[in-house]
Amino acid sequence: MRIFRAQAYVTLKEGVLDPQGQTVQGALRSLGYAEVDEVRIGKFIEIKLEAQDETSARRAVEEMCERLLANPVLERYRVEIEEDGA
Amino acid sequence: MRIFRAQAYVTLKEGVLDPQGQTVQGALRSLGYAEVDEVRIGKFIEIKLEAQDETSARRAVEEMCERLLANPVLERYRVEIEEDGA
Repeated sequence: MRIFRAQAYVTLKEGVLDPQGQTVQGALRSLGYAEVDEVRIGKFIEIKLEAQDETSARRAVEEMCERLLANPVLERYRVEIEEDGA
Repeated sequence: MRIFRAQAYVTLKEGVLDPQGQTVQGALRSLGYAEVDEVRIGKFIEIKLEAQDETSARRAVEEMCERLLANPVLERYRVEIEEDGA
C-alpha cells in the first residue's frame, strides 16, 4: 500500500445563497475593503490515506465526498491527489 | 480597475489539534474507510475583487487574511489570484 494526500475542495454550487460569505463580505466592507464584490466560503479537506494507486485513492476520496464530506444537492467538489513524499 | 478572483486557503498550522478533522475521520472510519490516516479541515474562500493589477489584488487579499479571514496564531494561509475572464 502507498500513502497519498488528497485535497478536496467543497464549494456551494452557483446560485446557492451563501450567508456566511455575505457576512464576511459585510465585515470586509466595514473594514474598508470596498473593492470586494463577492465572497463565497467553502471547505478545504486534507485527507491522508493508504491506497494501492492514485486511481483508487481518487475513487475512494470522491466516494467520501459523495457520502459524507459534501452535500451533492447544494455543493460541488473537486479532488486533487498526490503521493506522500513523492 | 480590473476584476480578479482570489482563492484563499486557510489551514491549521502543523501541530495544532483539529477536533473537526478528528470527528470527520471517525465518521469516515465508521463508514468503513479504515484506510484514512488523518483528516484536517480548512477553509476555502473565494473573493471577487477590483484592483489595479495582480500584485495589488494579492496584497489586498493577504491583508484581509491577516486581519479577518485567518487567525495568524493558529492558522496559515495561501492565496492564489487569477484575472476574471482571462
